[in-house]
This record gives sequence, structure tokens and C-alpha cells, in this order.
Amino acid sequence: MNNFTFYSPTEFVFGRETETQVGRLCIRYGARRVMIVYGGGSVVRSGLLDRVKDSLTREGIVCCELSGVQPNPVDTKVREGLALAQEFQPDFLLPVGGGSVIDTAKAIAVGYYYEGDFWDFYIGKAKPHQALPVGVVLTIPAAGSEGSGNTVITDTRTKVKTGLREPMLLRPRFAVMNPELTMTLPAWQTASGISDMMAHILERYLSNTPDVQIGDRLAEGMLLAIMEMAARVMKDPLDYEARANIMWCGTIAHNDTCSLGRKEDWFSHAMEHEVSAEYDVTHGAGLAVIVPAFLLYASRHNPHKVAQLAHRVLGIADSGDMEEDARQGALALKAWLHDVLRMPVNFSQLGIQAPDLELMNTRLHKLKGEVLHGYMDLDAAATMEIYRMVME
Amino acid sequence: MNNFTFYSPTEFVFGRETETQVGRLCIRYGARRVMIVYGGGSVVRSGLLDRVKDSLTREGIVCCELSGVQPNPVDTKVREGLALAQEFQPDFLLPVGGGSVIDTAKAIAVGYYYEGDFWDFYIGKAKPHQALPVGVVLTIPAAGSEGSGNTVITDTRTKVKTGLREPMLLRPRFAVMNPELTMTLPAWQTASGISDMMAHILERYLSNTPDVQIGDRLAEGMLLAIMEMAARVMKDPLDYEARANIMWCGTIAHNDTCSLGRKEDWFSHAMEHEVSAEYDVTHGAGLAVIVPAFLLYASRHNPHKVAQLAHRVLGIADSGDMEEDARQGALALKAWLHDVLRMPVNFSQLGIQAPDLELMNTRLHKLKGEVLHGYMDLDAAATMEIYRMVME
Repeated sequence: MNNFTFYSPTEFVFGRETETQVGRLCIRYGARRVMIVYGGGSVVRSGLLDRVKDSLTREGIVCCELSGVQPNPVDTKVREGLALAQEFQPDFLLPVGGGSVIDTAKAIAVGYYYEGDFWDFYIGKAKPHQALPVGVVLTIPAAGSEGSGNTVITDTRTKVKTGLREPMLLRPRFAVMNPELTMTLPAWQTASGISDMMAHILERYLSNTPDVQIGDRLAEGMLLAIMEMAARVMKDPLDYEARANIMWCGTIAHNDTCSLGRKEDWFSHAMEHEVSAEYDVTHGAGLAVIVPAFLLYASRHNPHKVAQLAHRVLGIADSGDMEEDARQGALALKAWLHDVLRMPVNFSQLGIQAPDLELMNTRLHKLKGEVLHGYMDLDAAATMEIYRMVME
Repeated sequence: MNNFTFYSPTEFVFGRETETQVGRLCIRYGARRVMIVYGGGSVVRSGLLDRVKDSLTREGIVCCELSGVQPNPVDTKVREGLALAQEFQPDFLLPVGGGSVIDTAKAIAVGYYYEGDFWDFYIGKAKPHQALPVGVVLTIPAAGSEGSGNTVITDTRTKVKTGLREPMLLRPRFAVMNPELTMTLPAWQTASGISDMMAHILERYLSNTPDVQIGDRLAEGMLLAIMEMAARVMKDPLDYEARANIMWCGTIAHNDTCSLGRKEDWFSHAMEHEVSAEYDVTHGAGLAVIVPAFLLYASRHNPHKVAQLAHRVLGIADSGDMEEDARQGALALKAWLHDVLRMPVNFSQLGIQAPDLELMNTRLHKLKGEVLHGYMDLDAAATMEIYRMVME
């Protein structure tokens, strides 16, 4: 186990009707002028936005609103938010929505105190030292951004989609999480969220760091619970208990609970970012096609963790042939994603009939380097092979 | 799943040589005048105390010392600490040791700002609203106090041993956790610590709250990992990796990671507190005799969670007879505690030849009420039956 620091100071307020507490929570964390950030449609239609504003107003908090954040959030919306923030001078940001909305707010939070362009932080040109505090009202369990110090944004000019990780600056002060708010999510969005969470767990799980038993067992436990709850929610979208388990799992899948003390592997996420940046597909659905291909490739080149996953989570009996068990595990996961989550299994089902693999692969290595050093060392030929497997 | 709030703002700094960072951490959390709290012997002999003091002095921090804290920490030492604190006027408390030392520091932390007797907080006569900040250098993984908002103290006059739980006030600001510091712990202390951690997990696990799958799976994962690592460390005390897994498991066993959204059951702890308060036995060893008896009793009166534990953690195949499987699970755990951890299995092995069961049972119900309402409803006859089972 490697040395690590774990610092997760977010106050999670979880359960029915918790959104009524948002005003009180903002006050506790020093907010007086709050910029609310949201997407559109459902947050307004459901009356949630009004309930949140009422809760703030009752505490004497002044608000402004940035709306229209889209899935796969983009730099242009961040810049619009930064301009609004310069005018309004908020002391707190309150995203109401899912990962896209939260990640946009986090980008504004670090950009606000910086004289240059906020994108500098994402491409490593500069390091942020200050950020506006952020609180969250979560409506889509998926990205785990409510508990993480991460944000992912796409540059619309270059189509570079990449992340910034600043746990000390960007972990939200609080996250209000009411599973009832997720009960109206369409099946596609629910399933894509679950696929995203599972990828967050698996990318931590795939590690060559020895003796990380506690993290492995926690990861396996999360996967077992989420797969059981996913089957329930896909049958009955109004199953509160399943929604609640899934919502909390989405948070701990990405707040490092199961990855402490190990080198992680984030390259199936990186490979998917090229897909959703170019073709604007749903991130979790993109992961549902990439992750099984990634695991199948791993079953031939570094099978040990995939075989362990197969044995402990995916119901594959130990045959003594690690490579074959790993392959069976990857196939079992692929089948489960398709049969239970009704996720696509290849580019065509994802709605991309003629993907430009060469373009995505070139961009991937331009951004991440000639060889991706993770659970496996992947050069351009290796990642191209994985992308090609997604054609089938 | 019930509504919950989870707030764990402790900064955990984990791994080799991390104690060299303690001065810098104290400064980050605003310390200028630090009262160091410790037991005696090994912290001094090993040179750890000097290293900690050096680290503080390098940052210009002024220190005083409270030493001589004993296992099963007592009110008299807390009062000694409070008198020293009134004189020295610390702005930060730094326990260096295990649960007894940390719990003593937490008691001083709340007592410091209170005009009455600190014990009022423990018996519910008053509620604390302010506390000195606490940082921890952990040397004994067991109690989980480094990540919890709990403290347990014994009143030497009445022999009442009871706890205070104030997560918002008493979670430490930071916890420095170097597994190397635990490698010289004697087998008995190592095993007692592991027994304590397992009880912390099991007392959260035993719950009738439905649909807490994610917490159950995390708890089972922790138990599987800790049992694997315990077997290793009992064979080779210098196995750093096993020590590291155990140390981190001790923290998350008690920081609510696996108990969110459920009603917990803390009555095997309460039953043990009567044993260690009266006979001053090691808390974890006391739990090793109480917990299996508690589970055996549960296997007859409310077997469902014990059966699930048996199937998922203790290697008992599902026979279709829940009560019998639960019984087999309880016996398997008892055997494991004896065979692997070399813990006592009854009062006699614990060193108590003629325990006054009546006295302990009367005190238990005087403190906790006529009926203990937890995973089972336990009246005085029920807890007496459990105590009697420990005679065998």
C-alpha cells in the first residue's frame, strides 16, 4: 500500500426532502451572495429550482442564475458564467443538477480568482491556488462530482475534453442528496449514470499496487451492491430504496473511498472522453462500450485484477486459468451492461456508424502522451486495438 | 435506507514516516500552543515523542505534556488534564497513542470550555457546544477514535463506562497514521485491536433497517479484508502491508462508512463496557468473548443478518435453514477469534474466574434502560443469558 492523504470534508445531507435545508447549509458555510448554476428543463419543471430559491431567500441570501449547462459541459458556458460572476460578485456557487452542472461551477470557482484563461488549469499551464466555495444540490447520480475534487470540461474549439483534480480546493462544502429527485430520471440516463459509477470503481480497481486488500474488497462490495440495485431500478424506476443505494454509491465510487494507497488507471475514461468530445454521446453510455473492450484487452495482457473481479463479483468460478477467467469476466460484464442496463455494446449501437478511430486515437495520445502508463502500458497500437474492438 | 448526514472532515495522512509532518499539520490547523497527551512507555522509548516534539518545535509551536493515560481511560486523568489546560491555555490538543489517549484528549477538549464537570456530557446532563481542536498521531489501530466523533471514559467512583458522540465537534482535524509505528505492538494488543474493529463493523451490520445493501456490502468487504490481513500479521508482526490494511480498516470501521442510513446496535459494546469497567480487562479481548455470545443469542432470536454474515463472510454454505446457518456463523467467528487471533473465548480465559454477572447486568440496565432496543429487544433476562453464555 502506498502512502496517501485522504481529505473529504464535504458535509453530505442525504435523504427525503433534504433540499429544504439548502438555505441553512449555505448560511453555515458563509454564503450571502449565491450564484445558482443549472441546466434547464427538469430542474425548472419539477419545481426544484423554485424550492431551492425559496430556501435561500428565507435566509436572506441574494441570488443570480446561470442556466443552460449541457451534458458534456463546455468552456463557452464556463466563460459565460465567469462574466456573470465578475458582474454579480458571488461569495458561493450552488450547482443544482448532475456532473455537468457541478463541473461547470467548479471551473468558474477556480477561474474567478485567476487573471488568465481558466482553461490554463485544465491543460496544466497554471495551478489554481484559490477557489470560490461550492455547495451542491444533486439530481443525477453518476459523475460523483458532489464528493470529488475533480472537474471535466471540453474545449469546443479543439474538442479536447480533460479534467482538473484539486481535492483541497474543489471538494464541495456540502452536498444535498435527495433520492426522490432521481425517481423521474429516464431509464437511459439512470443506466448511463450507473455505468459511469461502475467505471469509476473499476478504474480504481485496475491497479498493480500490491496488498491493497481493503480497497479491493470495498470496490467489490460497491459493485455487488450497485449491480443488485441497478437490476431493481431498471424494473421499477420508483423504487426509492434502490435509487438511494445507487445515489450514495455514486458518491463513494468517486471520492477515493476504494482507491487509497494505490496507483489508479484512468485510461478507459480518457479513451471515452475522445468519443464523447467528438460525437457528443452520453459519457456513461460511451463508457459502457469502452470498458468491456478495455477489460477484454487486459485479460490478454495483464489479467490478474480482471480475473479477481470475475471471481468475486461476476460469478465466474475459478478454473485455474487466469486469462480465460478474466476473459469470461469481461464478457459477463459486457452482457450485464447490455441485458440489465440496456446499454449499447458497440459504436453502432451508441449511434456512431463510422467513427473516426484514427482521429480519436491521435488526439488521445497527443493529450496523454505516447504511452499511457497505467495498469498496462498502452501505446497507440494498443489503444487502437481497443477502439477497434468496440466496432464489433 | 434512513436519511443521514455524513460529515468526516478529518485529514488523514497515512503511510511511512508521516509523523514528520505533524508540526506542519498543526500549523495548518491554527495551533500555536499544543498540549501533547500520551500514555507512557513505548511512545517515549521508541523515540516517537521526541520526533513529534522536534516537528512541533521546528514550527515554533510551544508544548506542554500530559502523560500516564492508561487503557480504559478514566475521569481522574481527564481532570488532571483539565487542570493542566487551565494553566497552560492550549489552543490545540495532540494525543499521541491509541484510543485511550485520544478519548482522554477529546474529553479535555469539551471540558475545557465548560464551567461544570466534564462528566455531565457523558451522562447526558449537558450538551457541549464548543471544543478545543484535536489532531492525532495514532500508534494503536483499534478504537477508530482518530476518525470518529466519539469518546469513551470510565468514572472511577461509580465504575460507569460510557461514551459521548459529537461528530460535529469531536472529529479530529487531522490524523497521522504510520503503520510502521504499529509493528512493535505485542500480539495480544494487535489482536485485541482487530477484535475491537470487527465489533465496530458488526455492531453497524446488525440492523433491521431494510435496503441498506451498500453499507452491508462495504461492511462485509471490510471484514473479509481484515480477516485475511489478521491471519498474516499474527504470523509475521513485521508485515508492513498487513499492518497498513489493518490500520486503515480500523479507521473506516468506526467513521460510519459502513453504517450510513441505518439504525445501529451498540449493545455488545455496552455489555463489554461493564466487563472492562469492573475487571479492567482489555476492551478488544472483552469484545472477543461477548460478540460471539451475542451472535449466538441473535441466531435464535433474530437470525437474518447473522445468517447473511455467515454466508458472505464466514464461509458457511446456504443450507436453507437461516437459524442454523446463523448459529454456524457465530460458532465459526468464535473459532476464528480463538484460533487465528488467539483471543479468549470465555470469562475464565479472559482472566475473570468468578465474574459478578448480576452486578454487571444491573449496571448495564441502570445505564441503558430496562430494555435495550437494538437489533433485538433485550431485557435483563436476555442480557443475563448472553453473559451466562460467556461462562462456557
